Amino acid sequence: MGALQELKDYVREISELYSAIALCAWDQRTHMPEKGAEARSKVLGRLERLAFERVVSDRMGELLAAAERDGAPTEVDQALLRVWKRDYTRNRAVPPDLYQQFVEATSRAETVWEKAKATSDFALFRPHLAEVVSLVREIAELVGYKESPYDALVDEYEPGMTTAALRVLLGSLRRELVAFLKELSRGTPPHELPAGMFPLDAQRQLCREALGWIGYDFAGGRLDDTVHPFTIEVGTGDVRVTNRYQEDDPFPGLFGALHEGGHALYGQGVDPQLAWTGLAGGASFGIHESQSRFWENQIGRSRAFWRYSHPHLIRHFPALARTKPDAIWRHVNRAQPSLIRVEADEVTYNLHICLRFELEVDLIEGRLTVDELPARWNQAMVDYLGVTPPDDAHGVLQDVHWSGGMFGYFPSYTLGNLYGAQITETAEREIPRFWGKVQAGELAPIREWLRENVHRHGRVYLPDELVRRVTGSGLSAEPFLRYVRTKYSEVYGL
Amino acid sequence: MGALQELKDYVREISELYSAIALCAWDQRTHMPEKGAEARSKVLGRLERLAFERVVSDRMGELLAAAERDGAPTEVDQALLRVWKRDYTRNRAVPPDLYQQFVEATSRAETVWEKAKATSDFALFRPHLAEVVSLVREIAELVGYKESPYDALVDEYEPGMTTAALRVLLGSLRRELVAFLKELSRGTPPHELPAGMFPLDAQRQLCREALGWIGYDFAGGRLDDTVHPFTIEVGTGDVRVTNRYQEDDPFPGLFGALHEGGHALYGQGVDPQLAWTGLAGGASFGIHESQSRFWENQIGRSRAFWRYSHPHLIRHFPALARTKPDAIWRHVNRAQPSLIRVEADEVTYNLHICLRFELEVDLIEGRLTVDELPARWNQAMVDYLGVTPPDDAHGVLQDVHWSGGMFGYFPSYTLGNLYGAQITETAEREIPRFWGKVQAGELAPIREWLRENVHRHGRVYLPDELVRRVTGSGLSAEPFLRYVRTKYSEVYGL
Repeated sequence: MGALQELKDYVREISELYSAIALCAWDQRTHMPEKGAEARSKVLGRLERLAFERVVSDRMGELLAAAERDGAPTEVDQALLRVWKRDYTRNRAVPPDLYQQFVEATSRAETVWEKAKATSDFALFRPHLAEVVSLVREIAELVGYKESPYDALVDEYEPGMTTAALRVLLGSLRRELVAFLKELSRGTPPHELPAGMFPLDAQRQLCREALGWIGYDFAGGRLDDTVHPFTIEVGTGDVRVTNRYQEDDPFPGLFGALHEGGHALYGQGVDPQLAWTGLAGGASFGIHESQSRFWENQIGRSRAFWRYSHPHLIRHFPALARTKPDAIWRHVNRAQPSLIRVEADEVTYNLHICLRFELEVDLIEGRLTVDELPARWNQAMVDYLGVTPPDDAHGVLQDVHWSGGMFGYFPSYTLGNLYGAQITETAEREIPRFWGKVQAGELAPIREWLRENVHRHGRVYLPDELVRRVTGSGLSAEPFLRYVRTKYSEVYGL
Repeated sequence: MGALQELKDYVREISELYSAIALCAWDQRTHMPEKGAEARSKVLGRLERLAFERVVSDRMGELLAAAERDGAPTEVDQALLRVWKRDYTRNRAVPPDLYQQFVEATSRAETVWEKAKATSDFALFRPHLAEVVSLVREIAELVGYKESPYDALVDEYEPGMTTAALRVLLGSLRRELVAFLKELSRGTPPHELPAGMFPLDAQRQLCREALGWIGYDFAGGRLDDTVHPFTIEVGTGDVRVTNRYQEDDPFPGLFGALHEGGHALYGQGVDPQLAWTGLAGGASFGIHESQSRFWENQIGRSRAFWRYSHPHLIRHFPALARTKPDAIWRHVNRAQPSLIRVEADEVTYNLHICLRFELEVDLIEGRLTVDELPARWNQAMVDYLGVTPPDDAHGVLQDVHWSGGMFGYFPSYTLGNLYGAQITETAEREIPRFWGKVQAGELAPIREWLRENVHRHGRVYLPDELVRRVTGSGLSAEPFLRYVRTKYSEVYGL
């Protein structure tokens, strides 16, 4: 047996362990009885350890070296070598003791963060965050980078992306969005919809139908309730969506389903040949997010979509029977500066991310201390969004990410929006009568186009390669800016 | 670290793998989308292999030997050594090649059995069954035994039980039951209940309530639908029940829930200290079955239970509003010789088992060939139950067990009935106003008594030790015979 085949057998075992981990995690967040929590955390810890031991094992190092010597004959084999070597190298760079320190520090920090957020007490969180930042900086040095230690972090989520490139992209995006927000404030906001109660079962049913419209395959997945929605790839043919609902508003549930459904279509569209190779995931967090944002925003918040789906909406919710499709479309495209990222609209959302990116880079590059963080945060909120957090709970303490040491993750959200808009422009050109199809509910050709161009490749291409293959050029903020300006100018009557 | 502690750490890892396996299996049979089946079988195979490798590893052998040399200080430690040594020894006795042959032969045989049963074609199944029997006999020789090769098989399911002891127990049971059936045929069968439709959601709700009555803790478990009901211990604090329902008859669902609930109470009642030791299961298949049969039959088919539960039944099913509690009690205690084991009542069920036991022993001891099996089966059905199978699908082909090589399993069902009746007689003596409590729906003291005497011990005691501790004497068929004679004589007006 050749070295490459041995490597494939070895990563198959790891991938099968990941599948078991995914199922345990899914169950933990959807069906597990509360008293099962302690046992589950032990089982998850064990499976993760068994997988991790293999990812960083001497045997993995030998197999990678041998397979590299032999050479990888195909594009897929080369990608397989690339992704496992990356995981091996990143993880071997960090000594087990330091990693253990990191795990313990973030575990403590997350616990303290919950309390600090509840009481809006940044001073409580500060020493823990400082410890996490210090460890993350140490890890970044060990992982290595070309220009900025932040490169080492962002690369984990968006392989190949650099701090310098993000500065350019997000810098111009921020300037344009801040200016556009000022314009919007002179426009006319959409009318309010009539208030009502929207029974959860009807919402679930509508979401099942909406997942059907976009082509989610229930024979290869499920829809379940959860507290913090997520999509999870348990295995080939088993990509599960979870969602939550608000009884006084049917739209968060519906857009949640379209968002998670977009992630799930990616998972369901990967070439089955890539199963158990480590290549069956998404090209990056940003590319994955582009697929969720595509269905949630580009399609789900389009006028054409509401012309199609409005009768279905009012069938489930008679309280909305007197609304018109365009009123719904306007309603779901409201832009309003606000304090909380996860509640933000398409225009302001990316400003929340730009702010976090800039603070993260300064923290990791050592130009900003944790002590200075709240003041910098609040100033940036005023500068970018024109709002002032009344306290740190509604400011610097709002997100869990930093307590978990996830520096470099936030940009993925905005990258998803940018990739999504850029891919949409290409799809509009390449798919005849794109918006006519959306308005007729004929979404299959659009999904097939995405499958052919994006989904089936899994992790074979790096994000930059993939976006060039799909759209013909590297990532740019322009398509997103065009999209946002056009739609919101119309909604706000500019 | 002492050898015993090292052994405990090692079996903890195996037990954690078993927990992941249990969750994968539960999901496979309750929630998994159909297209996830192939990936799931790979993941289950991998986890089982990882666990099995550890059970039979050289390291396990060394740890067991070292721990035995050091000596096990407590009863629990001794039991831990006993159960892992047993698994190690049994599995090491069978060479991997032979085991592989067995796995493949049974896999083929199960596939062929399905087809053979569907077409009632024993000739199709015969060569496969012959191969399985031959391999099972070979395995029994390697595992070793004192008197009969069947000892080696039955010991897997009922540690310490022997063929000789079963011959005595089941022989007298069979003679008494055959005689009692003749008596019953002169009695008056219960009246039919009015026909009706019983909505599945109402059945599910009643079953949830019934599980609540017997003290099943939903904070440490769940109730889900499935095709072939089972109970599964995912981990400490996570013992899940599954069930199925018939729309034209509410009783199979209700008794299914009580049966599975009985298994689940055992799992929920095990001392949490036994978690991850391999001792958190039941003492044997027979003892486990005694707990399900206790709640299903001893309690669930008692007159007292129906006096309590009748108002709840008619609340859910107005179609039964004109029935009386005693009519329900009589209805659920109908005895009627029939062809199919899984549809049999309390009187005739054990005769189906006696028949299988006798044929199994003769096959394994080499006194019966597979060719002769259908004729022997049909003759025994006439002798014991007075019915003649019209074809092999309703005869020798009805059960899956033999195709899977599970010789020695069938007696567990009857042992469960016998243990259950014997434990009930003790409980009636020791718990004041036993049946008064049942009639008042005060089942908590009964469950607590079982927890204290049976459940909390897990696998610490061998079945024979356990039943002596609980009831003061070894297993006997007499309590069961007294129970069946008393109840059915009354129902049939003898």
